[in-house]
Amino acid sequence: MPKITVYVTLKPTLLDAQGRTVEGAVHHLGYEDVTNVRIGKIIEMEMPGGAEEARERARVLCDKLLANPVTESYRIEVQP
Amino acid sequence: MPKITVYVTLKPTLLDAQGRTVEGAVHHLGYEDVTNVRIGKIIEMEMPGGAEEARERARVLCDKLLANPVTESYRIEVQP
Repeated sequence: MPKITVYVTLKPTLLDAQGRTVEGAVHHLGYEDVTNVRIGKIIEMEMPGGAEEARERARVLCDKLLANPVTESYRIEVQP
Repeated sequence: MPKITVYVTLKPTLLDAQGRTVEGAVHHLGYEDVTNVRIGKIIEMEMPGGAEEARERARVLCDKLLANPVTESYRIEVQP
Protein backbone atom coordinates (compact mmCIF):
# COMPACT_ATOMS: atom_id res chain seq x y z
CA MET A 1 0.00 0.00 0.00
CA PRO A 2 1.63 3.32 -1.04
CA LYS A 3 2.63 5.61 1.79
CA ILE A 4 2.23 9.30 0.95
CA THR A 5 3.99 12.15 2.69
CA VAL A 6 2.87 15.70 1.99
CA TYR A 7 5.06 18.65 3.01
CA VAL A 8 3.10 21.92 3.27
CA THR A 9 4.99 25.18 3.69
CA LEU A 10 3.96 28.80 3.70
CA LYS A 11 4.90 30.69 0.51
CA PRO A 12 8.24 32.45 0.98
CA THR A 13 6.88 35.97 0.48
CA LEU A 14 4.40 35.67 3.35
CA LEU A 15 5.11 36.61 6.96
CA ASP A 16 5.15 33.46 9.10
CA ALA A 17 3.74 34.58 12.45
CA GLN A 18 4.24 31.15 14.07
CA GLY A 19 7.83 31.08 12.80
CA ARG A 20 8.45 34.52 14.26
CA THR A 21 7.21 33.34 17.64
CA VAL A 22 9.45 30.25 17.56
CA GLU A 23 12.38 32.42 16.44
CA GLY A 24 11.84 34.62 19.49
CA ALA A 25 11.93 31.55 21.74
CA VAL A 26 15.09 30.31 20.00
CA HIS A 27 16.78 33.67 20.57
CA HIS A 28 15.63 33.59 24.18
CA LEU A 29 17.50 30.27 24.58
CA GLY A 30 20.70 32.09 23.59
CA TYR A 31 20.83 31.22 19.87
CA GLU A 32 20.52 34.78 18.67
CA ASP A 33 22.08 34.15 15.26
CA VAL A 34 19.31 31.79 14.15
CA THR A 35 17.23 33.48 11.45
CA ASN A 36 14.42 32.84 8.98
CA VAL A 37 12.54 30.36 11.15
CA ARG A 38 9.54 29.07 9.24
CA ILE A 39 7.00 26.44 10.24
CA GLY A 40 5.27 23.94 7.99
CA LYS A 41 3.17 20.80 8.20
CA ILE A 42 3.73 17.16 7.36
CA ILE A 43 0.77 14.95 6.52
CA GLU A 44 1.44 11.21 6.22
CA MET A 45 -1.20 8.77 4.98
CA GLU A 46 -1.68 5.42 3.31
CA MET A 47 -4.02 4.53 0.46
CA PRO A 48 -4.42 1.45 -1.72
CA GLY A 49 -3.60 1.44 -5.44
CA GLY A 50 -0.59 2.24 -7.59
CA ALA A 51 2.01 4.92 -6.82
CA GLU A 52 0.99 7.27 -9.64
CA GLU A 53 -2.68 6.99 -8.76
CA ALA A 54 -1.86 7.68 -5.11
CA ARG A 55 0.13 10.77 -6.09
CA GLU A 56 -2.74 12.10 -8.18
CA ARG A 57 -5.23 11.52 -5.37
CA ALA A 58 -2.90 13.18 -2.88
CA ARG A 59 -2.70 16.18 -5.21
CA VAL A 60 -6.50 16.48 -5.22
CA LEU A 61 -6.57 16.19 -1.43
CA CYS A 62 -3.94 18.94 -1.11
CA ASP A 63 -5.87 21.30 -3.35
CA LYS A 64 -9.19 20.63 -1.64
CA LEU A 65 -8.26 20.15 1.99
CA LEU A 66 -4.66 19.86 3.15
CA ALA A 67 -3.11 23.07 1.80
CA ASN A 68 -4.39 26.57 1.14
CA PRO A 69 -3.30 27.20 -2.47
CA VAL A 70 -3.34 30.96 -1.91
CA THR A 71 -0.84 30.98 0.93
CA GLU A 72 0.87 27.58 0.91
CA SER A 73 2.99 25.38 -1.35
CA TYR A 74 3.12 21.62 -1.10
CA ARG A 75 5.35 18.76 -2.16
CA ILE A 76 4.20 15.13 -2.40
CA GLU A 77 6.42 12.09 -1.84
CA VAL A 78 5.16 8.58 -2.57
CA GLN A 79 6.81 5.40 -1.27
CA PRO A 80 5.28 2.56 -3.30
CA MET B 1 24.87 29.93 5.78
CA PRO B 2 23.58 26.36 6.52
CA LYS B 3 19.87 25.86 6.12
CA ILE B 4 18.40 23.42 8.65
CA THR B 5 15.14 21.56 8.23
CA VAL B 6 13.72 19.68 11.22
CA TYR B 7 10.94 17.14 10.73
CA VAL B 8 8.99 16.44 13.93
CA THR B 9 6.53 13.56 14.02
CA LEU B 10 4.48 11.96 16.75
CA LYS B 11 5.80 8.60 17.91
CA PRO B 12 4.04 5.77 16.05
CA THR B 13 2.51 4.19 19.13
CA LEU B 14 0.64 7.35 20.13
CA LEU B 15 -2.88 8.27 19.01
CA ASP B 16 -2.73 11.28 16.70
CA ALA B 17 -5.93 13.22 17.45
CA GLN B 18 -5.23 15.85 14.79
CA GLY B 19 -4.55 13.11 12.25
CA ARG B 20 -7.83 11.40 13.14
CA THR B 21 -9.69 14.65 12.52
CA VAL B 22 -8.02 15.16 9.14
CA GLU B 23 -8.72 11.51 8.27
CA GLY B 24 -12.40 12.11 8.97
CA ALA B 25 -12.39 15.12 6.64
CA VAL B 26 -10.59 13.08 3.95
CA HIS B 27 -13.21 10.34 4.20
CA HIS B 28 -15.93 12.97 4.03
CA LEU B 29 -14.49 14.08 0.68
CA GLY B 30 -15.09 10.57 -0.64
CA TYR B 31 -11.63 9.07 -0.12
CA GLU B 32 -12.74 6.44 2.32
CA ASP B 33 -9.80 4.10 1.72
CA VAL B 34 -7.23 6.59 3.04
CA THR B 35 -5.86 5.36 6.37
CA ASN B 36 -3.24 6.08 9.00
CA VAL B 37 -3.29 9.86 8.58
CA ARG B 38 -0.69 11.43 10.85
CA ILE B 39 0.32 15.06 11.21
CA GLY B 40 3.80 16.41 11.91
CA LYS B 41 5.69 19.69 11.87
CA ILE B 42 8.47 21.11 9.73
CA ILE B 43 10.76 23.78 11.18
CA GLU B 44 13.14 25.51 8.76
CA MET B 45 15.84 27.89 9.93
CA GLU B 46 19.21 29.35 9.02
CA MET B 47 22.23 29.76 11.23
CA PRO B 48 25.85 30.73 10.57
CA GLY B 49 28.76 28.30 10.99
CA GLY B 50 29.68 24.90 9.60
CA ALA B 51 27.23 22.15 8.74
CA GLU B 52 28.20 19.83 11.60
CA GLU B 53 28.05 22.65 14.15
CA ALA B 54 24.63 23.64 12.79
CA ARG B 55 23.38 20.06 13.12
CA GLU B 56 24.57 19.87 16.72
CA ARG B 57 22.92 23.17 17.61
CA ALA B 58 19.70 22.09 15.89
CA ARG B 59 19.76 18.91 18.00
CA VAL B 60 19.99 20.98 21.18
CA LEU B 61 17.13 23.20 20.00
CA CYS B 62 14.99 20.14 19.26
CA ASP B 63 15.58 18.66 22.68
CA LYS B 64 14.94 21.94 24.48
CA LEU B 65 12.23 23.59 22.45
CA LEU B 66 11.12 22.22 19.09
CA ALA B 67 10.15 18.66 19.95
CA ASN B 68 8.72 16.93 22.99
CA PRO B 69 11.11 13.99 23.49
CA VAL B 70 8.42 12.02 25.35
CA THR B 71 5.88 12.03 22.53
CA GLU B 72 7.74 13.08 19.39
CA SER B 73 10.64 11.96 17.19
CA TYR B 74 12.65 14.32 15.02
CA ARG B 75 14.98 14.17 12.04
CA ILE B 76 17.42 16.93 11.12
CA GLU B 77 18.56 17.76 7.57
CA VAL B 78 21.34 20.27 6.94
CA GLN B 79 22.02 21.90 3.57
CA PRO B 80 25.47 23.48 3.86
